[in-house]
Amino acid sequence: MTERIFNFSAGPAVLPLAVLEEVQRDLLALPGVGMSIMEISHRSKTFDEIIVNAESNIRQLANVPDNYRVLFLQGGASLQFSMVPMNLLPANGKADYIITGGWSKKAMKEAQKCGQVNVAASTESEKFTRIPTPDELRLDPEAAYVHYTTNNTLYGTQWQQTPTVGNVALVADASSDIFSRPLEVQKHGLIYAGAQKNLAPAGVTLVIIREDLLARSPQGMHTMLDYNTHVKERSLYNTPPVFSIYVMGLVLKWLLAEGGLATMAQRNEAKAALLYAAIDATEFYRPHAVADSRSRMNVTFRLPSEELEKQFVAQATKAGLDGLKGHRSVGGIRASIYNAFPQTGVEALVSFMQEFERTNG
Amino acid sequence: MTERIFNFSAGPAVLPLAVLEEVQRDLLALPGVGMSIMEISHRSKTFDEIIVNAESNIRQLANVPDNYRVLFLQGGASLQFSMVPMNLLPANGKADYIITGGWSKKAMKEAQKCGQVNVAASTESEKFTRIPTPDELRLDPEAAYVHYTTNNTLYGTQWQQTPTVGNVALVADASSDIFSRPLEVQKHGLIYAGAQKNLAPAGVTLVIIREDLLARSPQGMHTMLDYNTHVKERSLYNTPPVFSIYVMGLVLKWLLAEGGLATMAQRNEAKAALLYAAIDATEFYRPHAVADSRSRMNVTFRLPSEELEKQFVAQATKAGLDGLKGHRSVGGIRASIYNAFPQTGVEALVSFMQEFERTNG
Repeated sequence: MTERIFNFSAGPAVLPLAVLEEVQRDLLALPGVGMSIMEISHRSKTFDEIIVNAESNIRQLANVPDNYRVLFLQGGASLQFSMVPMNLLPANGKADYIITGGWSKKAMKEAQKCGQVNVAASTESEKFTRIPTPDELRLDPEAAYVHYTTNNTLYGTQWQQTPTVGNVALVADASSDIFSRPLEVQKHGLIYAGAQKNLAPAGVTLVIIREDLLARSPQGMHTMLDYNTHVKERSLYNTPPVFSIYVMGLVLKWLLAEGGLATMAQRNEAKAALLYAAIDATEFYRPHAVADSRSRMNVTFRLPSEELEKQFVAQATKAGLDGLKGHRSVGGIRASIYNAFPQTGVEALVSFMQEFERTNG
Repeated sequence: MTERIFNFSAGPAVLPLAVLEEVQRDLLALPGVGMSIMEISHRSKTFDEIIVNAESNIRQLANVPDNYRVLFLQGGASLQFSMVPMNLLPANGKADYIITGGWSKKAMKEAQKCGQVNVAASTESEKFTRIPTPDELRLDPEAAYVHYTTNNTLYGTQWQQTPTVGNVALVADASSDIFSRPLEVQKHGLIYAGAQKNLAPAGVTLVIIREDLLARSPQGMHTMLDYNTHVKERSLYNTPPVFSIYVMGLVLKWLLAEGGLATMAQRNEAKAALLYAAIDATEFYRPHAVADSRSRMNVTFRLPSEELEKQFVAQATKAGLDGLKGHRSVGGIRASIYNAFPQTGVEALVSFMQEFERTNG
């Protein structure tokens, strides 16, 4: 087997090794089927079982109530930035957006093409170093929905609690922390997530939508952009991304076998705590996010100079710690440590950080 | 290795075994990278090489002129049914649609949401058994574009020549025969294809668009639905379907190594000729498509009764010939024999057909 390195990429990101091994084993022909997963019809009994089981495991993992529908779509969160307002924001309606980073802003930009948008809160003036406090939210009780981003990959911040928005439908972009901890589906109207961080290879987008919201989609919508199409056709209106859904199915089984979302939360908490402790132990490393807003998925920090940051990334890569360069909008270092990222990799990074500081501090 | 059967599925469909074997070999870690193709960043040098090479090989295979752009999108042909008119059909414009089957009708239905649509020809009254003749096309010289479906999977018909449409932009849905024969890109304004038949696993959509058409997209479009976004960002505006593009890249290399599109055309011609000869040799099997409109990709035929068709499919499946049940809109038998489908599989089907007729005829 070719040697695998520690992959700190923000996404697409590391997948469980056991999942990769099963994909590899069955790649030429699924057992008893005689065809590769890449070759089977999406109308076949084999794929029907795969997608039905995937939905069932999502419902079990996240305690999805019966009045929510689970969809497997394409186009990533970026297409959801448009589909959400196209479907949920009425012609003369308005929507609240909570702005906590670049992805929130992109989501808002698409909504502005559909109707009136109110910035319910923004921490941009503080370089998105934190999540707004509950009393900072200027919510409109007549809004069609409130949109927020559960975790901000660029800045390394994360909502610690689901925001309280009264009777207005809460819409979450949960792309970068879905199923990394228990998810309060019942507090949301719609949750969407590009799957390529915690769930699957790129190419599939998970949508969980409360049934009553489906009635909002205007008449005459383009078929592929209407949530009702995909609800009615059980995500099989056209050929779905079969392979990505198959791998997601294996990841979901792995999540259940490992103990579910509570176990994931514990592990992710422990991994992040280890890394934040290493950052807090010295002045050499400076965290980007303020303590009570820190992400357990993306840990962002700076070094004393950009030159040192470059050296850090280059030497880490050589040491088998890959993908640590921060996003250009923040700079510095970003260590993404999703569900499948092993504790041993975090320990290796902490050792590397200590050694790097000793040599360069 | 698990035994593989002959897969006559209309799509997703059979892929070259050599491609599957390379995917399997490198699945845990790409050589020299230390990560699975499913885990690498779409911003990495590794993926940049993959997508640049894929585009380059598409250009070489299909002789794509320099004034065309090549895009790798999501959502399948079904999303292109909407994106084409959204981008190319001006507010007060009109478009010509040539209707040769269910997919053409679905494409037209989305265009009708954007503007005025003229049916330039339709063979629906003849149960889509043939492609219209050139003198049947009632083309509007002021149309924004003419849309046609190069190959009709449901009915087993295929355009034998690119339609002549004067100076109007010709738009092709080439999902089910792309790269099965030489493609006259220069006669088209836009070609799109869901990749899951001849090119890749499901999840990626190829679009080849002439640059001058990009100026038509209206201001204020949703970002993901605007071709200009994907041209400007080289299909990397958001996370693309990395794995499907990777496999497409391997299929493109295979196509080049096998001799390119002219070789594919010869092989596909030979495979189809063998099967049509077996159908024409007897009254027991009745072809759906008329002779001069026959598809080399999807061969459709009937048996004397629906009961016999059921037995045929069931016994064929037992014999390792899978996916032969015709689409419900046509009934009967459909044998899909795309690029990667081997001649030996066609020979096996012909033998099975002869034996089935001997026993049941």
